[in-house]
Amino acid sequence: MKIIVVGASGAVGRAVVETLSEGHTVVTVGRNSGDFHADITRDDSVEALFREVGNVDAIVSAAGHLHFGPLASMTTAQFNIGLQDKLLGQVRLALIGQHYLNDGGSITLTSGIVGEEPIAQGVNATTVNAALEGFVRAAATELRRDRRINVVSPTVLTESLQTYGPFFPGFESVSAQRAALAYRRSVEGVQTGRVFKVY
Amino acid sequence: MKIIVVGASGAVGRAVVETLSEGHTVVTVGRNSGDFHADITRDDSVEALFREVGNVDAIVSAAGHLHFGPLASMTTAQFNIGLQDKLLGQVRLALIGQHYLNDGGSITLTSGIVGEEPIAQGVNATTVNAALEGFVRAAATELRRDRRINVVSPTVLTESLQTYGPFFPGFESVSAQRAALAYRRSVEGVQTGRVFKVY
Repeated sequence: MKIIVVGASGAVGRAVVETLSEGHTVVTVGRNSGDFHADITRDDSVEALFREVGNVDAIVSAAGHLHFGPLASMTTAQFNIGLQDKLLGQVRLALIGQHYLNDGGSITLTSGIVGEEPIAQGVNATTVNAALEGFVRAAATELRRDRRINVVSPTVLTESLQTYGPFFPGFESVSAQRAALAYRRSVEGVQTGRVFKVY
Repeated sequence: MKIIVVGASGAVGRAVVETLSEGHTVVTVGRNSGDFHADITRDDSVEALFREVGNVDAIVSAAGHLHFGPLASMTTAQFNIGLQDKLLGQVRLALIGQHYLNDGGSITLTSGIVGEEPIAQGVNATTVNAALEGFVRAAATELRRDRRINVVSPTVLTESLQTYGPFFPGFESVSAQRAALAYRRSVEGVQTGRVFKVY
């Protein structure tokens, strides 16, 4: 398969690229790194990306920023960061990418455990991750020609504990390599509309 | 209690006002109707609303627009309608309204059955409703001074079957009056972080 991985330079993305490179042709995309550059917050950038890359058999996204901060002082502009970046950015990859996705192909997005289990200062993250899971649930019912869409929801990565550990008290971490398996399950498997929880 | 109801002129809003008016002082808000006018898509409008109304014991929202249309031709601009209106609009009422909410007060937002049960052309609705349920789940953990936040998720209203019925094949409808009970349960009850499903 020809697979495009957006957010390929992140902790999850790197592991996904490594896993999927066994037996597939992987095209890596990042904001400033990878085979192609793209900004998922802009239609023109994502359109240009798919025009350059051409049709693919799978679209994988491990991209998107959120706002973290206390609810008591959060502004709507801060809250909108996650809506425009991790949420609409990944939805954009699906809405535009569907026109470049071969029959039987798949789209795999990324949410996260905080969608189900709130953490301190994580209200934007819970909202956005829950939204992505809703998007996939509905989009799966409308994709035609045997195309599928799923979302992977990883817990905190062992590789990220140094930075994010204090925000995940009592959460069990997983290796990026183990999280990457869920993306492989989505790409090579048969299911659609699913949330693959890695926790 | 002094209760502000935003979206008071809609089918749900009218029933909520009727129910809550038994024993409470209800302030009605609409874009172009009610005791006060406000546009939930603008910070300055919502700020001005709360400055005029002053502190309240409960904020109830039954407001917000979505985009309905097929996934295959949906644009990100269309998808963003629901994110900016029903989602961020109601989040805005919570983020700004929290500063005008008395100790022990409550916020009640509105999602909808489509968050859980996708319908044709409803991908924006499923996403936004799921997001609102995530928001409430997380925000409940951060609200202090015994303040609570819930969301009501009604199925299609019997009163709206004429218009929306064809989009809800095999869905059981409920009366607006029955849906309104869930808002009363949220306002006068003890729970927080809950999705009150009316279906």
